[in-house]
Amino acid sequence: MIGKLNHVAIVVPNLEAATALYRDALGAKVSEPLSLPEHGVQVVFVELPNTKVELLHPLSDKSPVAGFLEKNPGGGIHHMCYEVDDIQVAAARMRAEGKKILGDVKIGAHGKPVIFMHPKDFLGCLIELEQK
Amino acid sequence: MIGKLNHVAIVVPNLEAATALYRDALGAKVSEPLSLPEHGVQVVFVELPNTKVELLHPLSDKSPVAGFLEKNPGGGIHHMCYEVDDIQVAAARMRAEGKKILGDVKIGAHGKPVIFMHPKDFLGCLIELEQK
Repeated sequence: MIGKLNHVAIVVPNLEAATALYRDALGAKVSEPLSLPEHGVQVVFVELPNTKVELLHPLSDKSPVAGFLEKNPGGGIHHMCYEVDDIQVAAARMRAEGKKILGDVKIGAHGKPVIFMHPKDFLGCLIELEQK
Repeated sequence: MIGKLNHVAIVVPNLEAATALYRDALGAKVSEPLSLPEHGVQVVFVELPNTKVELLHPLSDKSPVAGFLEKNPGGGIHHMCYEVDDIQVAAARMRAEGKKILGDVKIGAHGKPVIFMHPKDFLGCLIELEQK
């Protein structure tokens, strides 16, 4: 079912410093910062030849990643996103497998339908499934 | 400097169950388990179209990932591996940037030279750089 690893998302305490780290120390291609108020985050895309790393920073205390940053003040990997062909088929399969979907199908940060799977069911990793 | 994301490594409490999860629930292509006694781990490769996920389980209490599993009994993302052209050039650049290399250049689980970078310098993520 799952296809490509679409991205790995890292929540960071300082977006400018994190961008500089990936650009200058690691020599990667990075995007301009992009604000996604409807998702409560600012994001910088690190463009690798085969996938992306997304550097996320909360836009406010109410951001869905604010609590993560409180628990991990130096930053940390927040989730991994795998592509699927059809989000409804994927969601039905997850339910049939007894896996807990967090919330419902929603429109993700790339404008595509996504679901998030509970880390307890997936080896301690928050998993996003995104319709490609 | 960095090229492809070579893999994301997840330490898991039960390799058979983790393999079944990726194979059956997520429908991914998984390898047979491989023991790497010189690295203290047993590994299953989850082969995605653009990169790999590596499911790691400690071979003994002395495994380099045994402590991680103790702290994260349900499992968790252990490290991310980026490819570089030349490990010596990469190591020199990391030193010049004031970043802490854990140990020295060694031969990694794929038989290629690698270094590991301290998570404190890389947004809470343990980073492996592997010569491609």
